[in-house]
Amino acid sequence: MSAALIDGKAIAADLRARVGAGVGQLQAAHNLTPGLAVVLVGEDPASQVYVRNKGVATKDAGMASFEYRLDKDVSEAALLAKVTELNEDDNVHGILVQFPVPPHISQQKIIETILPSKDVDGLNPVNAGRLASGLDALTPCTPQGSVMLAKQTLGNLEGLHAVIVGRSNLVGKPAAQLLLQENCTVTLAHSRTRDLADLCKTADILVAAVGIAEMVKGDWIKPGACVIDVGINRIDAPERGEGKTRLVGDVDFQAASEIAGYITPVPGGVGPMTIACLLKNTLDAACAQAGLEKINL
Amino acid sequence: MSAALIDGKAIAADLRARVGAGVGQLQAAHNLTPGLAVVLVGEDPASQVYVRNKGVATKDAGMASFEYRLDKDVSEAALLAKVTELNEDDNVHGILVQFPVPPHISQQKIIETILPSKDVDGLNPVNAGRLASGLDALTPCTPQGSVMLAKQTLGNLEGLHAVIVGRSNLVGKPAAQLLLQENCTVTLAHSRTRDLADLCKTADILVAAVGIAEMVKGDWIKPGACVIDVGINRIDAPERGEGKTRLVGDVDFQAASEIAGYITPVPGGVGPMTIACLLKNTLDAACAQAGLEKINL
Repeated sequence: MSAALIDGKAIAADLRARVGAGVGQLQAAHNLTPGLAVVLVGEDPASQVYVRNKGVATKDAGMASFEYRLDKDVSEAALLAKVTELNEDDNVHGILVQFPVPPHISQQKIIETILPSKDVDGLNPVNAGRLASGLDALTPCTPQGSVMLAKQTLGNLEGLHAVIVGRSNLVGKPAAQLLLQENCTVTLAHSRTRDLADLCKTADILVAAVGIAEMVKGDWIKPGACVIDVGINRIDAPERGEGKTRLVGDVDFQAASEIAGYITPVPGGVGPMTIACLLKNTLDAACAQAGLEKINL
Repeated sequence: MSAALIDGKAIAADLRARVGAGVGQLQAAHNLTPGLAVVLVGEDPASQVYVRNKGVATKDAGMASFEYRLDKDVSEAALLAKVTELNEDDNVHGILVQFPVPPHISQQKIIETILPSKDVDGLNPVNAGRLASGLDALTPCTPQGSVMLAKQTLGNLEGLHAVIVGRSNLVGKPAAQLLLQENCTVTLAHSRTRDLADLCKTADILVAAVGIAEMVKGDWIKPGACVIDVGINRIDAPERGEGKTRLVGDVDFQAASEIAGYITPVPGGVGPMTIACLLKNTLDAACAQAGLEKINL
């Protein structure tokens, strides 16, 4: 192994501590406590874990945490009414509806109902458009955290070639905008891309966000590159015993770490940054809603 | 010269005729005439020509054309009031404020004041965000026309590598989104890009949108590539006589056309498509405002 590990846990812990300090400043100077509301529909076990972790992290940062658990059969209208109630609640500065929602509910309707100013997931088209236009915006947490890791690792990203594999609204496309703001040359690749291996090999920064276990192979990596692995995939791990599983990313970590200069582990890379950026977005949203400048963390 | 010329004039004339037919349908079926309002501030000679041409094309397509010429010293408040008046005018379905505006007026404020549903320039962040999110949107005219030319020339663009040089909100960034929707692999390059020549040489589709006369050289072109030249630059042409000028694109046309498979001329390439797409956007906006399906042209 030659690549240096990018310690997402440590970098996220540091960011969370700085957000916590910012919350303290906001309380001291303006008697304002940022509040994050998380809405969970149904009982998906993974979603329950995410929601619980978000609640703990929110309180740890000194913010108010509001959790709403709705039955999996809740009507779309009732869910949208809950969102509207939270839009109007002055104690709530950020709203996150945990996706996926059951198929009878339109995810897009939820996204467009959340007030852009409270849209800490950054998925409302107004925020996507402000990001794409180079304006101040609430930005999706996972790509935001991914780019922070690259910056923390490499410093100035100007002129580097960033290749993003995967073009989702939640990760790939906002990551492209953020890396463009860092003055990278940015390539968006996806399932229809030809010669993906050769393309990846031109990347100084490679962001893998496709959701396919270990799809990116070691020999796709440019020697010395910075590899940001957004994927979290659970695969069978019979070597650990019958029925056991383990988490892997979208990159073949063992092979890639022989060649890359820097690489994020899975777990412990991008994952912890996502929650830290959610807290940061909630703090920023609280400041903006109160007409205050963003707190410099 | 080996490259086939992409005849933007002819393709634009065809689109304008189809828009005209769509306007006829809308009038016959719904007694609705789309209206486009163009606001010009000051007396910039180039802007005056653009506005006049837009007015002529609008009427040619059977639409209502409204022109407002404001003094160069008009206050920002008065201009915004005019925009608000047009927002509320049911005879106006598209609003275009001719840029640039004088420096005492915020271009961004104008962009954000125009109703997204009437924003036929596609610059409002709501439209940029809807485009970036893969939703139906009013899309900037020049990149829309550029991608139409590529599709008309090459057919299916899936899997092709599109390199866009220039990352403006008006051209480069929306062109990237549109080419991504066509399933191209998309690279956005700009002034900080390293090894730009080598990068351009990997492009199956090369979109030049930097505003620098003949910056893209012939030996930057991949043999057989489709070159879309968005630039319109006026340069001295002493060979035509003292004080004479001529228009050139961002690509060295003579050299590039020896190597490319297809190339747009300047003038007569992307330029005519811009007005045609403006008319198309106005027709689409009129349908949407009336709660009707888009007319299939």
